[in-house]
Parts: sequence; C-alpha cells; structure tokens
Amino acid sequence: MKINGVHYRSISLTENGWSVRIFDQRQLPWRLSIVELTSVEMAATAIREMWTRGAPLIGATAAYGLCLALREEPGDRSLQESYQRLLATRPTAVNLRWALERVQRAVVPLKGQERVEAAYRAAAAICDEDVQNCHAIGEHGLTLIREPARRKSVVNILTHCNAGWLATVDYGTALAPIYLAHDAGIPVHVWVDETRPRNQGALLTAYELAQHGVPHTVIADNAGGLLMRQGKVDLCIVGADRVTRNGDVCNKIGTYLKALAARDNEVPFYVALPYSTFDPSLESGAEVPIEERAAEEVTLIQGQTADAALATVRLTNSPAANPAFDVTPARLVTRYVTERGVLAAMM
Amino acid sequence: MKINGVHYRSISLTENGWSVRIFDQRQLPWRLSIVELTSVEMAATAIREMWTRGAPLIGATAAYGLCLALREEPGDRSLQESYQRLLATRPTAVNLRWALERVQRAVVPLKGQERVEAAYRAAAAICDEDVQNCHAIGEHGLTLIREPARRKSVVNILTHCNAGWLATVDYGTALAPIYLAHDAGIPVHVWVDETRPRNQGALLTAYELAQHGVPHTVIADNAGGLLMRQGKVDLCIVGADRVTRNGDVCNKIGTYLKALAARDNEVPFYVALPYSTFDPSLESGAEVPIEERAAEEVTLIQGQTADAALATVRLTNSPAANPAFDVTPARLVTRYVTERGVLAAMM
Repeated sequence: MKINGVHYRSISLTENGWSVRIFDQRQLPWRLSIVELTSVEMAATAIREMWTRGAPLIGATAAYGLCLALREEPGDRSLQESYQRLLATRPTAVNLRWALERVQRAVVPLKGQERVEAAYRAAAAICDEDVQNCHAIGEHGLTLIREPARRKSVVNILTHCNAGWLATVDYGTALAPIYLAHDAGIPVHVWVDETRPRNQGALLTAYELAQHGVPHTVIADNAGGLLMRQGKVDLCIVGADRVTRNGDVCNKIGTYLKALAARDNEVPFYVALPYSTFDPSLESGAEVPIEERAAEEVTLIQGQTADAALATVRLTNSPAANPAFDVTPARLVTRYVTERGVLAAMM
Repeated sequence: MKINGVHYRSISLTENGWSVRIFDQRQLPWRLSIVELTSVEMAATAIREMWTRGAPLIGATAAYGLCLALREEPGDRSLQESYQRLLATRPTAVNLRWALERVQRAVVPLKGQERVEAAYRAAAAICDEDVQNCHAIGEHGLTLIREPARRKSVVNILTHCNAGWLATVDYGTALAPIYLAHDAGIPVHVWVDETRPRNQGALLTAYELAQHGVPHTVIADNAGGLLMRQGKVDLCIVGADRVTRNGDVCNKIGTYLKALAARDNEVPFYVALPYSTFDPSLESGAEVPIEERAAEEVTLIQGQTADAALATVRLTNSPAANPAFDVTPARLVTRYVTERGVLAAMM
C-alpha cells in the first residue's frame, strides 16, 4: 500500500523497535494522522474506539498490545490481565481472540526478557503472515475478476464497508483482488457502499481506491439493489469479521442485504477472508455475538466544513439503535476467497 | 395531523384564498418553517428542490401550482406551459401527472375567471380526497396490525423513508395504519430507516411519530435485515411513488432491499398507496423512469451544530452516484393497502 507514493503498513513498529505505529483511521480521509501506541491501555483504546479497525488489523493490534504489556511487566498476572483487557475491546471479530491466543501460546513457556522477545516475534509473524495471506487472497480472487473481464469492457464490483489495506496489515482482503486486477490492466470500477453509520466505505475504501488509482463511485447503502437489477454490478466482494463452521458470514451491518440482492439478481457474492477469521468453534452465525455500539454513531456525523475543519453535526434527536454487524447465511455466499484458494465451503 | 398540538394539513390555502401554504420540509425537524407559494415558478421550485415531497403531496402541490399559473394568466398557452413546467419537476411519482391531468380536464372547457375557479375547486378536491383516501388506507391497514397484535405484546413495524402526513395532505399512507393502531391502544413500535441519502426517515418520519407519541427507534438503513433475522420485525410497511400494472413498486431507493429481507425471513411486506399512485399505463417497474439526483445529496449532509445552528458538512470528496428510487418486484409484496381495501394484486 502506498499513500501519496510512500509505502506503509497499517501497523508497524517504530524506529525504537518496541512502540507501535498505526493510523488514527477516524481522521481519514481528511488527515493522515499517525499514532504511536506505547502501552496496552493505549492499544485497547485504539481498538475499542476504532482508531484502528478491520478484523485482521484488530488481531495484529491486539498482538502488539500484549507485547507492550509484557514489555512493561512480563509476569503471568500481567499476561492474563492484558489478554482479558484486549479481548474485551470488541466482541465480534474472531481474529482478536485468535491473535491473542497465538501470542499467549508463544510466551507461556518463557519468562522475563525472553518472554517479551517471543511476544514481539509472534506479533511480527502475525503481521508478516497477514501480508502474505492478503496477497494470496488477492491472487486467488483475481481469477474471479478475470472471468467477467472476458465479456465486459469494465468489470463493475460492489463492496461494502472497508476490507482493504486499512483493515489489514497490507493489501486487504476484499480489495486485494481489485488492486491486483487493476495492476494487471483489467479495467475495474468499484461501487463503494457508504456503509452507515460509520461510513467506512465513503471514508476509507474510497480513500484507498483513490490512492491506488482505481475508478470508483460512492453510493448510499440503499442503492446496491437497484444497481444489481439494472445489470450494473458484475460481482460483489466483501470481507468478514467471523465465519462459522457452516459458512455463515458475520460482517459489517448491511452485508446481508447486499447478499440477498446479489442472489435475487444472479450476481456472484464473494467473501474474502484469511483463515484467522474462520471460527470452527461456532456452528452457525446465530451464535456470533453482535456488537451493539453507541447510538451516537447513528445520530452524530463528522464531516468537513467549508473552511476545511472537521466538525460533528447532529442528524437527529430521536432514539437510535446501532447493531454493528449482521449475519449472511452461507446459502447466499457464492465462494469464499482465502489464502488457500477459492472455496465453495469453508470446511 | 398535529404539530405541537395544532392541527395542520401539509398543504392548504392561506387566508387570502389563493396562495398556498406548505412546510419547507428541508428544515424539519429543526425548524417548523412555513412557506407561502405565490406563483407557479415557486411551486415548481418547491417540488424540484424538495421543500415538499412525497408522491401524493407532490400531486397536490402541482395541482395548486397550476391554479397559481392560471390565476396570473388563464389562457391556453399559460395552461400548457405551466403543465409542462410542473410535470418536469420530478420524473418518478406518477401522482404528479395524475393531479395535473385532473386539473387540466376540469379547466379545458372553461375560460377566464371560471377556469381559475374550476382549477382551485379541482385542487381542493384532490386534497380533500387525499385526506379521505389516506384515512381509509389507515383503517384498512389497521386490520393488518391487529393480526400480529393478538400474539405480540408490542407490534414492531419497520418503515422506510417517509410516507406519513408530510408525504400526503394528512395521515399519510404507510404511517396512517400506525397512527390508527396507536390511537386504538395497540402497542406499536416503529423501526425508522434513516433513509440515506436525504434522511427522510430520521428527519421526517421520526418527527411525525414523536409528534403523535408513537414509540420509535431510528436505525441505519443497513440494520433492517439483521433485525428481521432476529425476529424483531413483525411487519414492514412502506409507501410508493408509482405502482405499475403488474404490481411492481417504485419507491425510495433501498425499499427493494428491505422487501428481499422480509421475504427471506417470512415477514409480511405491505405497500400502502392511494390509487392515484397506480399507473396502469406501464406494464412493469422496468419502465418507470428512475430519477438520478445530485451527487451532493450523498457527499454533503446537513445537521445541527452544538450551538443549535444548522450546518452542512462534507462526508467525502469522492465521486458519488445518487439514484433516488428502486423497484420492488410484485412477487415480494405481501399485500397492497389502498383506500379500496387490502389487495393481493393491484389489477
């Protein structure tokens, strides 16, 4: 990923070798604000308050959060408390638990400085593997874009929320095939769902696509059904926060509605995910805890004023509810795009 | 309809007997701004710029717009030009053409002051009948709410956009049954789709329901599918901008997605409309012209600042598309609720 031509990862260590650099994604696309995480408390806040988000990136941030805790105090109690603190930040994305367990497994047999070093090695491995996995997802997904490209002069792709490099360490999940297709010279155009209430589509996905030079158009979340009926969508591709054993997909609220429209119009509906997002411990999506976030995410909205300041305005004084995820039943998913290949089913 | 306890219609003549009083709905719920239309140009602007909206209310406003034109100049050329000018304001709602044709038929045989008086009589009749029709829609729709009320302590109803008294002369179409149910002591709760990009749900429907004392919760348009899967929606009811001979429903963008979710979860999906919204001249929804509105409706948003001023902020600098309506195929509609009764099909 490049921003203004400079290569970044969405998470990395700073030059001191221990503190963690992320973007405060709440400021994008208006400001590129880099934050240095120096404590587990800060890492937990960054996840909970969504300075950083996206299932794979949440996992990577939590892994480094555990490193920061152990660096301060490498004992078992510190490990346990920090593990629990980080696990409690967001309930839905399973990558969080997956990453924490992986670091924990690596450090439990060790003590002191060895434990700290092992934690950093595990976190770095999680990040490096995420980059490799996302690139592999991109390559496998590319075959699914090449197919309609044979008969269409431009392949129109609809995506929901942000499952790009801002949701992962690099490349993204759902967006990785799009970047690779664009780089391969396949003309693609992306319909970007605004993704209310937090507008990750309009703010983050559109920003990423613009940085990469991929043609795109932001639409209200309501518009995708019409576009599919009009034949203006060749395929849909989204990310996932958790996929259960039966293939149900928990992802950003509104994903299910697009999957229904895709099925009704015979548009392929693809879900891109690394295996760290797969949770075989749950039988179906009905068991996934759905995060209910603050009503203010619906009733307040941030934007840029005429003099380029950021301001928050109130959309309504009415009571509001804000479930953050929904479940798309496996029967509506055409294919799963993973680092291991394109699959008809996850098991 | 009552606002702060005072009875209003959404459109009425002023005390002078010829100019037309409407609300500038763009200011609601923040300000109750009453506008006096004194010319056909003003009436056309009010419709085009959505000071006033909603299929039945657009028709009533256009009818009075023709009156204002004829009052100024009652000749045939004035009639033709004003008819065309008003017809061109919005393409999708068929009530516009229906109302203009009705006034035209009434005045064509007449001249001068008689023509003007006949126009005002026709416009008044359109308004009075709309009130009666909406009340009848309410009574017929009430039977559909009584049914789940037998087994549920609270009937949860999802609606999209605004099809209440602010979309009609009084009562509303989709909301009329809800008001009558509430008045009849049936506990109802309404899930109010925000309805991006213009937020008519969060702004207008929530305002109406609050004024009437009906419990309600605003949700992002993305949330309805999850709520239906969770069993939290007993029925959906929406209005319509045009219903074609085969029963396809053209309504606010996003309606189709909710109809798909309702079908997938066996939730009844009702469409409420007066016959003035039925267009038997079109075979199917594919023939309905879909209005493409300005991208700024997606990229800019108005809200209230901390010091209670109204301000517009920019959500994104990205290119955006803004189709304003979609088509819900007849196969997804459980029943049509009209002034003539609850129907399985429109023909």
